[in-house]
Amino acid sequence: MSAQQSAILLIHCPDRTGLVAGVSEFLHRRGGNILHLDQHVDPEQGMFFMRVQWDLAGFSIPADRIGEEFRDLVASRFAMEFALHFAPEPSRMAVFVSRLSHCLYDILSRCSSGEWSIDIPVIVSNHPDLRVVAEQFGIDYHVFPVSRDNKSAQERLELELLQAYQIDLIVLARYMQILSPAFIASYPNRILNIHHSFLPAFPGARPYHSAHQRGVKIIGATSHYVTSELDAGPIVEQEVTRVSHVDSVHDLIRKGRDLEKLVLARAIWHHHQHKVLVYGNRTVIFD
Amino acid sequence: MSAQQSAILLIHCPDRTGLVAGVSEFLHRRGGNILHLDQHVDPEQGMFFMRVQWDLAGFSIPADRIGEEFRDLVASRFAMEFALHFAPEPSRMAVFVSRLSHCLYDILSRCSSGEWSIDIPVIVSNHPDLRVVAEQFGIDYHVFPVSRDNKSAQERLELELLQAYQIDLIVLARYMQILSPAFIASYPNRILNIHHSFLPAFPGARPYHSAHQRGVKIIGATSHYVTSELDAGPIVEQEVTRVSHVDSVHDLIRKGRDLEKLVLARAIWHHHQHKVLVYGNRTVIFD
Amino acid sequence: MSAQQSAILLIHCPDRTGLVAGVSEFLHRRGGNILHLDQHVDPEQGMFFMRVQWDLAGFSIPADRIGEEFRDLVASRFAMEFALHFAPEPSRMAVFVSRLSHCLYDILSRCSSGEWSIDIPVIVSNHPDLRVVAEQFGIDYHVFPVSRDNKSAQERLELELLQAYQIDLIVLARYMQILSPAFIASYPNRILNIHHSFLPAFPGARPYHSAHQRGVKIIGATSHYVTSELDAGPIVEQEVTRVSHVDSVHDLIRKGRDLEKLVLARAIWHHHQHKVLVYGNRTVIFD
Amino acid sequence: MSAQQSAILLIHCPDRTGLVAGVSEFLHRRGGNILHLDQHVDPEQGMFFMRVQWDLAGFSIPADRIGEEFRDLVASRFAMEFALHFAPEPSRMAVFVSRLSHCLYDILSRCSSGEWSIDIPVIVSNHPDLRVVAEQFGIDYHVFPVSRDNKSAQERLELELLQAYQIDLIVLARYMQILSPAFIASYPNRILNIHHSFLPAFPGARPYHSAHQRGVKIIGATSHYVTSELDAGPIVEQEVTRVSHVDSVHDLIRKGRDLEKLVLARAIWHHHQHKVLVYGNRTVIFD
Repeated sequence: MSAQQSAILLIHCPDRTGLVAGVSEFLHRRGGNILHLDQHVDPEQGMFFMRVQWDLAGFSIPADRIGEEFRDLVASRFAMEFALHFAPEPSRMAVFVSRLSHCLYDILSRCSSGEWSIDIPVIVSNHPDLRVVAEQFGIDYHVFPVSRDNKSAQERLELELLQAYQIDLIVLARYMQILSPAFIASYPNRILNIHHSFLPAFPGARPYHSAHQRGVKIIGATSHYVTSELDAGPIVEQEVTRVSHVDSVHDLIRKGRDLEKLVLARAIWHHHQHKVLVYGNRTVIFD
Repeated sequence: MSAQQSAILLIHCPDRTGLVAGVSEFLHRRGGNILHLDQHVDPEQGMFFMRVQWDLAGFSIPADRIGEEFRDLVASRFAMEFALHFAPEPSRMAVFVSRLSHCLYDILSRCSSGEWSIDIPVIVSNHPDLRVVAEQFGIDYHVFPVSRDNKSAQERLELELLQAYQIDLIVLARYMQILSPAFIASYPNRILNIHHSFLPAFPGARPYHSAHQRGVKIIGATSHYVTSELDAGPIVEQEVTRVSHVDSVHDLIRKGRDLEKLVLARAIWHHHQHKVLVYGNRTVIFD
Repeated sequence: MSAQQSAILLIHCPDRTGLVAGVSEFLHRRGGNILHLDQHVDPEQGMFFMRVQWDLAGFSIPADRIGEEFRDLVASRFAMEFALHFAPEPSRMAVFVSRLSHCLYDILSRCSSGEWSIDIPVIVSNHPDLRVVAEQFGIDYHVFPVSRDNKSAQERLELELLQAYQIDLIVLARYMQILSPAFIASYPNRILNIHHSFLPAFPGARPYHSAHQRGVKIIGATSHYVTSELDAGPIVEQEVTRVSHVDSVHDLIRKGRDLEKLVLARAIWHHHQHKVLVYGNRTVIFD
Repeated sequence: MSAQQSAILLIHCPDRTGLVAGVSEFLHRRGGNILHLDQHVDPEQGMFFMRVQWDLAGFSIPADRIGEEFRDLVASRFAMEFALHFAPEPSRMAVFVSRLSHCLYDILSRCSSGEWSIDIPVIVSNHPDLRVVAEQFGIDYHVFPVSRDNKSAQERLELELLQAYQIDLIVLARYMQILSPAFIASYPNRILNIHHSFLPAFPGARPYHSAHQRGVKIIGATSHYVTSELDAGPIVEQEVTRVSHVDSVHDLIRKGRDLEKLVLARAIWHHHQHKVLVYGNRTVIFD
């Protein structure tokens, strides 16, 4: 964790020799001191993945020219796809909620305590219930009640709102509405959901009831990017906890809340740090 | 853990007042000092579950009369179903294997080292491969190659063998054959399987491949009693471990082996200690 | 979890026959339906521990007479020490903090969201920093700056305040002051602390720095009742998480915060549910 | 995991720009395709750590010249210390035991089952008890009874034996003797011990008894390289499991055995894969 300005490249391309040398040589010649370098080769798919973060102090290319130069001199040569980020970088997150407040409280507390340097300018909900929480933390709260008939109209208004607030990342903090494919396509790999089960076990509604019914000895929670297939997007983080016959469905819900808070927070942190690279339906987490 | 002789009652019945008093009074009046008592009420189903273990030293009813007296004086009054066990009690276990030896080695080591006081007089397999392990530990090894055509005939021979060896518990230690309903019915809640996934995720074949494909961040193993529905029997124990994008399918298999050994061993231990009560498709583990 | 009124007895005494029968008979004769019964015998110390919770609907003794009758008819006969509680019961908790807000936010969020039915009428601190959090949640905030010279005087004022607010339980949520033995003696087994290490490893100051220095692969947090010996009181709950060489001290602090929140919340929950029995310097958690 | 021949470099040196570029350029120019590259910078100590593994197929330097060329062309330029390994490479391990067999069985099973390609030509003990296990697996077993008087003489004989067997790694699998500094100095960072507690909690003798006495809610096991300070060497791996008041010391010992097996096996695996770099009293695990 350094206060000075650094740059981050997330790269993937078909594997071949010279990739690490090509990137590190590019940085070295321009005076870039590497802070973190993490690479991964998937031998089955023949793919190369890399995250490199370097100090911008003493780097000879100005920040607004790095992307272009890297493309021309390195990426084009190796057929690399890449994303360039800077840190620290202002990040703006919208939280979508319904009626349950535990994940929302956890997220807002992390921002208020200074643990996270993320701006949350707006909370969106299909219910008015959690306006009181938004007010406690001084955040705008917009209610869009959703029915079968008004869904696409409401989503259009939500998208306008998100644009107005210049939102980078949408977090569904137990938001109990399914988003349309059109909405999802507007924020590809930028909508994080928390699902209250250890996916792929118990997708869909009422997973704690299903877990209780099945008599599992461990329950879990899963945070994933939202795709058009329900609860089937790329998994970012999972965690579990032990349960027993003593635990009622109510106990599973209580224990699960703590999992949900933890897993969603870790996923947001990974995303915010630009440590997640989505490839196919899987994630590489450069942790 | 006491060396002296003790008795164990596993009880379930519809919940009502007076059940604990009825049982504990019965034991107390006959001089039975309770070593462990564990009870559980499932309020949804209105069912009462209990495990009680008491010292037989000073108990006024001879061991071979306890079941009858308890039935007449207590169980019949409360519509209880019960099972009576004694500890320590000779227990005889058969292990079914195919080609993978890690669970077999773990089980045999626990018996040889004196950790478990369980007799394993026979190992059954559909392949000759692990005969060498059986010989290392001086245990009979019987091969029953199974094809679609000979399956029921082979299972009849296996059942005869198990009877001849007076087997109480069958452990499927990565046995890669599906048992017929008829075979399973001969050992109800006495066939323990280890499945190499966190059920109900990834039932059936090649779960590590499926887990890798789905990009989960945690893998698991599950031990359950075998029922006629594949990988759907009552779960006795589960455990998980963390994985990442770095792990190939081969790594999942390697990490999973340790889970399988651990989970199967714990399930056998629970069963052997008479700590498992099956009700519906779930288990109460009095641990 | 039942909405109706129930009573809870926490009992310990030297082990002998007839204890479970004595208690369950007492309850049964007066129409008490047992909701949970958990007992434990420590064979080394020859001690018997029990927690029993029963439905007061249909129980023939009025609530304010139960303690006396139980003492006369059961406890005195068996030399039992016992505590009697009722549920749901209003519980009043004071939180002591210094400058770190994560545990405080977590506690207040659980109360505000309705997860816990615990009243927190007052927050006490040796610093003014977290007054803003108290105000967000509408809770009184009192600052008592503590120096070597004024410590006993300030503690007397704190005790008066706690009495005025009728506090049952004091929670030290990263409160960075050592309480005097006299203060501790006023709330025996009613002051819960969260220590940011896996005790008994790394007691005292800066445990994350020590953990980093030692190169451990797992860090932890411990909640315990405060006694006059620093970080040595009876442990109520512990939890751990994995770390690696990649994690700086700053990362340990960040990961540790989540452990601290979780462990302290679980300890408060156990205490609030009357599931903790302290014996010697250890706890029995009837979970 | 590939069957073909690969080379591994473990490197550390003071951090500066150009290190990754220097190494990757060296490999790339000679046709070396990188299979894994992992680097870590410790900003506090200003140190750079790296593990790189590359395919030797197509690499233009013969294996027996790589070390020299890397030293001359790269390491000397950057003041790097490095170790060069090849994989797969025959590895020869000696196991030291006393009377407990569980870790020994686990290690031997992993070799016999083909999970590990490690040769164990000899088992050393201060007791004759486990000769029977050695014989089950067809391994030489040497007994060196150790007393205060004969310790240094016996250790000399042991060292001769280890040399005769060309041992690379010594594993203390619950070996209940303290090795002398002279013995330890002969195998620096090549003696792995398993300690049956979560170090630094409960070093020395009878840690399960101490853990029970302290009333911890979690127990652990730790594998570390042996140094002249007891139980204080660089930690390679740790794992924990939950316990409760229900568990007697005997139960802690039983549950701990499974931790010990698992932790020691993981540490051996890391060492065998050349994934451990010791720096100061800490380890970097390139996992």
